[in-house]
Amino acid sequence: MEYRYNMRDLKFILKEWLPTEEVLSFDRFKDIYSIDDVDSILTEAYKVAREVVSPINAQGDKNPVKFENGVVTSPPGYKEVFQFIQKNGWGSSSECIELESGMPLMLFKAANEPMVAACPAMGSNIKLTTGAANLIIDFGTEADKSRFLPKMLSGDWQGTMNLTEPSAGSDVGDALTKSYPTDDPRIWKIKGTKMFITAGDGSICENTIHMVLARPPQGTKGSAGLGLYIVPKVWVDEDGSLGKPNDVATIAVEHKMGLNGSATCMLNFGENDGCYGIMLGSAPDEMGRSKGLAMMFNMMNESRIGTGHNANNQASEAYALASQYTSDRIQGYIKGERVPIIKHADVRRMLMDMKAHTEGIRAMIYKGFYCLDVANNSKDKEKAKECADIAAILTPLIKCYGSESAALMTAEAIQCLGGVGYTKEYPVEQYLRDSKILTIWEGTSFIHANDLVGRKMTMKNGKPFKMWMGSIKNFIDSNKNAAGLEKEFGTLARAYQAAEEVWQTIGSWQAEKDKKRELINLYALRTLFVFAQLYVAMCLIDQAVVASKNLAGLNEDHFDLNFYKGKVASARYYVNNSLPNVFTVAELIKNADDTVLEVPEEVLIVG
Amino acid sequence: MEYRYNMRDLKFILKEWLPTEEVLSFDRFKDIYSIDDVDSILTEAYKVAREVVSPINAQGDKNPVKFENGVVTSPPGYKEVFQFIQKNGWGSSSECIELESGMPLMLFKAANEPMVAACPAMGSNIKLTTGAANLIIDFGTEADKSRFLPKMLSGDWQGTMNLTEPSAGSDVGDALTKSYPTDDPRIWKIKGTKMFITAGDGSICENTIHMVLARPPQGTKGSAGLGLYIVPKVWVDEDGSLGKPNDVATIAVEHKMGLNGSATCMLNFGENDGCYGIMLGSAPDEMGRSKGLAMMFNMMNESRIGTGHNANNQASEAYALASQYTSDRIQGYIKGERVPIIKHADVRRMLMDMKAHTEGIRAMIYKGFYCLDVANNSKDKEKAKECADIAAILTPLIKCYGSESAALMTAEAIQCLGGVGYTKEYPVEQYLRDSKILTIWEGTSFIHANDLVGRKMTMKNGKPFKMWMGSIKNFIDSNKNAAGLEKEFGTLARAYQAAEEVWQTIGSWQAEKDKKRELINLYALRTLFVFAQLYVAMCLIDQAVVASKNLAGLNEDHFDLNFYKGKVASARYYVNNSLPNVFTVAELIKNADDTVLEVPEEVLIVG
Repeated sequence: MEYRYNMRDLKFILKEWLPTEEVLSFDRFKDIYSIDDVDSILTEAYKVAREVVSPINAQGDKNPVKFENGVVTSPPGYKEVFQFIQKNGWGSSSECIELESGMPLMLFKAANEPMVAACPAMGSNIKLTTGAANLIIDFGTEADKSRFLPKMLSGDWQGTMNLTEPSAGSDVGDALTKSYPTDDPRIWKIKGTKMFITAGDGSICENTIHMVLARPPQGTKGSAGLGLYIVPKVWVDEDGSLGKPNDVATIAVEHKMGLNGSATCMLNFGENDGCYGIMLGSAPDEMGRSKGLAMMFNMMNESRIGTGHNANNQASEAYALASQYTSDRIQGYIKGERVPIIKHADVRRMLMDMKAHTEGIRAMIYKGFYCLDVANNSKDKEKAKECADIAAILTPLIKCYGSESAALMTAEAIQCLGGVGYTKEYPVEQYLRDSKILTIWEGTSFIHANDLVGRKMTMKNGKPFKMWMGSIKNFIDSNKNAAGLEKEFGTLARAYQAAEEVWQTIGSWQAEKDKKRELINLYALRTLFVFAQLYVAMCLIDQAVVASKNLAGLNEDHFDLNFYKGKVASARYYVNNSLPNVFTVAELIKNADDTVLEVPEEVLIVG
Repeated sequence: MEYRYNMRDLKFILKEWLPTEEVLSFDRFKDIYSIDDVDSILTEAYKVAREVVSPINAQGDKNPVKFENGVVTSPPGYKEVFQFIQKNGWGSSSECIELESGMPLMLFKAANEPMVAACPAMGSNIKLTTGAANLIIDFGTEADKSRFLPKMLSGDWQGTMNLTEPSAGSDVGDALTKSYPTDDPRIWKIKGTKMFITAGDGSICENTIHMVLARPPQGTKGSAGLGLYIVPKVWVDEDGSLGKPNDVATIAVEHKMGLNGSATCMLNFGENDGCYGIMLGSAPDEMGRSKGLAMMFNMMNESRIGTGHNANNQASEAYALASQYTSDRIQGYIKGERVPIIKHADVRRMLMDMKAHTEGIRAMIYKGFYCLDVANNSKDKEKAKECADIAAILTPLIKCYGSESAALMTAEAIQCLGGVGYTKEYPVEQYLRDSKILTIWEGTSFIHANDLVGRKMTMKNGKPFKMWMGSIKNFIDSNKNAAGLEKEFGTLARAYQAAEEVWQTIGSWQAEKDKKRELINLYALRTLFVFAQLYVAMCLIDQAVVASKNLAGLNEDHFDLNFYKGKVASARYYVNNSLPNVFTVAELIKNADDTVLEVPEEVLIVG
């Protein structure tokens, strides 16, 4: 089977749906990009994804990273592809939004999307390097920047983010890694063990720049006490040249369910007392507080939306593969004729389900990227703030609903293939395995659900969330008579009402305490699904309105006819078949069953 | 982490919930088993599962079956465990229900359950041997039986079922494998290729007895033309001794997402024109019809229920592991104290969800086994027929809902573990991979949904289905005042109404044709979920009624207190949180959106 990707939908989003020209008109971009570049950039990106990136995907799965005598080796082709992407402007140099060379996020992500889908494990290598570089761009000195950035952006070095430790997973504040001052106030000794470090090693680059959270001696307890340090694997002299090894050792590589091409490492810093890091930000204040975690979370919205995006890219590719297989595979009869299985109603249902979900979630994701672009670049400060708020609300929805949905969609793609879908001879099951981690990475689904109900709904006295809900209501009120979509608007309006009730109930629980307040946590994930599905439905209907208009002028043999029909169908399917989950959850929340909280916990333990 | 299994629930089912004594009183069993044996059989079975079987599970995953120079080698320990189970009466000799030594299904399956959960790949080796032996028991001559059975039941030989071919998957009738008559009317020459043959090879036994579907020259088209043949890998002389190799070659072994310890083979029969099989049943009739497939489907209900059972066993073990991890793992704070993560509401919700689903589906499964036991053994012919019908209705519900649910529950178990759940160092993710095939095996989920709406609802003029629905209504009417469960009975009654509406709508579509009739296929899977969830809810509430009674007499420190509380909690949780999906689907079916059928199929293809 052949790697193929739904590039048409990306072009629709950028050129027909979202106000991309507004973003391209910002000072930073206006002399560099125009809307006419979208086609050529996406066409070229797709070519790279197809010809350069996709060939290494199955290989990396079948020949996982190796760990022998302390040395980690990546699968064949990884080094070359990493460097190709980085050197040719398809990676970190375009992704780091605060670089001069940075592209608008919505454009970069559209170009990046087919590449991540072509090899998710490679996508992680790039993304982590971008994350590390962004920290240096935002919080490093000019000297730090010239010392590290050129080679991090050129593909010569890679970067990592080091938060997790054996006893500090979801709760980063329990980290035990320590930092000790030296004579130079910016240079600290580092000592500790980090685990689950994605792309932590792999012989792809001559050096790896680790961004490490560690607690200085005066650091207070919890996450507030953590500082952030640039810890190169091989020391980098001030002129950017390589020094001697910096006492960073890979002590284990995880054997994982998927993402076998990407090394998930356990790293030891300073085992021989010779590991040094360069402090980002300032030394701890008199209360022992540092801003390490806050700095790491600086790009949090972008990287969390990015995780949902990654999941959806994988689900999209699984869908593309399933659509290809089901239109080729002959099995069963209809009216006495053997037919490709795409003719069977249930197979079509699964394909439509994957199409509607991946397109709808993609729409929500690009709304998020658009908001970040405006927030980061608009001179209209009011609008920038508003967009930053919307991005903050969309972040947990995208991360959580995107990754949870990918788990279902990739399983559905396997189901479309039947028995062969379970084999590694076909590329679909790898997407289920590669994407499964994304409900855990960058905060588990619950952490995001909690972020929504505990933070995003109430931030700034709840004003942004109210505005966001208002924008959905406004969309419904202004468009509800759109020809051919009246029924869908009716359902969307009812879903809005149901969501509003959920919002009120959660609000009433926020005023309570103890058991009643625990209900918020108990229903948080389901609550998140309500708002995510409402928003996805709105985006799909909005796209269908645009598609209907475009469709009106086309001849029956126009090459885009089926695309627009498909956009209308996605909206219709999603609203009629998926959105009604909102009504069920609204009822559940009204009912507020608390069995889970009431049972003694021994009841839940099999033993 | 340690393998543990919820044996208490099995004892509850056999000793406190279902009328097991009725089954044990049947002539075949009454002198062999009594209800007092249940405890010791289950205790011993659990010991075998824990000490003998579970140690090979992770090993087999990490060291998949090997295929070198035409020879397939199973992972370390497989041979020994297979033979231990078969020789000690824990396998086929007890599972073959028509053997003198056969156990009641409900008792055998309860003993088998912890072993399948301990190593699903080994479970397949046993199950396939049972399937092949059952065919010889039911359709072989006395000579066939004495020739093959002793060594198939002793662990010396294994057995397989050969239906699928490269171009004949869900549609077995397209099989191309041929049989040719010889001078001996029972001996036929076999020629063809079969694929996806589970446990098709593996150097576990000195011989493998393949049961092969093939089409004789006069065989008609489609499945009616297929005969069934006993095709030993090594020829077996009439006295049961081994002859020369029978020209059966393994030409490939699948690389799969899971079940790595079990060899899924592509087999060539008669490549050198020297493969012979012994015909089961009679030669084709004058219309070219044989009963090969019908014979293979003879034990269909049992093996399909068995597939749902297998899935639920795996989900149960994944839940047991998650419960163990979450009660040990310290992370996060509640009121300033670091706590095991089982204290967090969302983790408890996931555990409760897995508990309720696996217990509820187990309850439905054992209803099915009970019905098969009565159908197979009762002298009361009326009751036997009625139970056979109920088993026929429950079969698609168990197979499809059991396997689809396992896919969600095993993913939920990974989520409970967080990052380590994604690694192979922990035994949970293997269950997701090992169980995923079960939504495809023994007929895909849609095939079973179609079986429900297209066959089981309408068989015998719809009488059995009406009776079955009546039994649910009757349960509700007779128990609705059960103390403490009034709310749950109310919801169950509403769910029954919703299901009745769905039943009527499907019935009305059955009278239509073309597009309208296609709606049945389009909504088949969701329809199946409605009836499965209704039945599971009923079983759980029924169990809760029993548990409530037992609970009433117990002191606060009784060792069974939490078990009974847990049974009540499972019912409450499921009815309040999962069952309401029935209302959503009922609405969807009323709405009958046909977008999926209306779109041109090109719309669904990513190209």
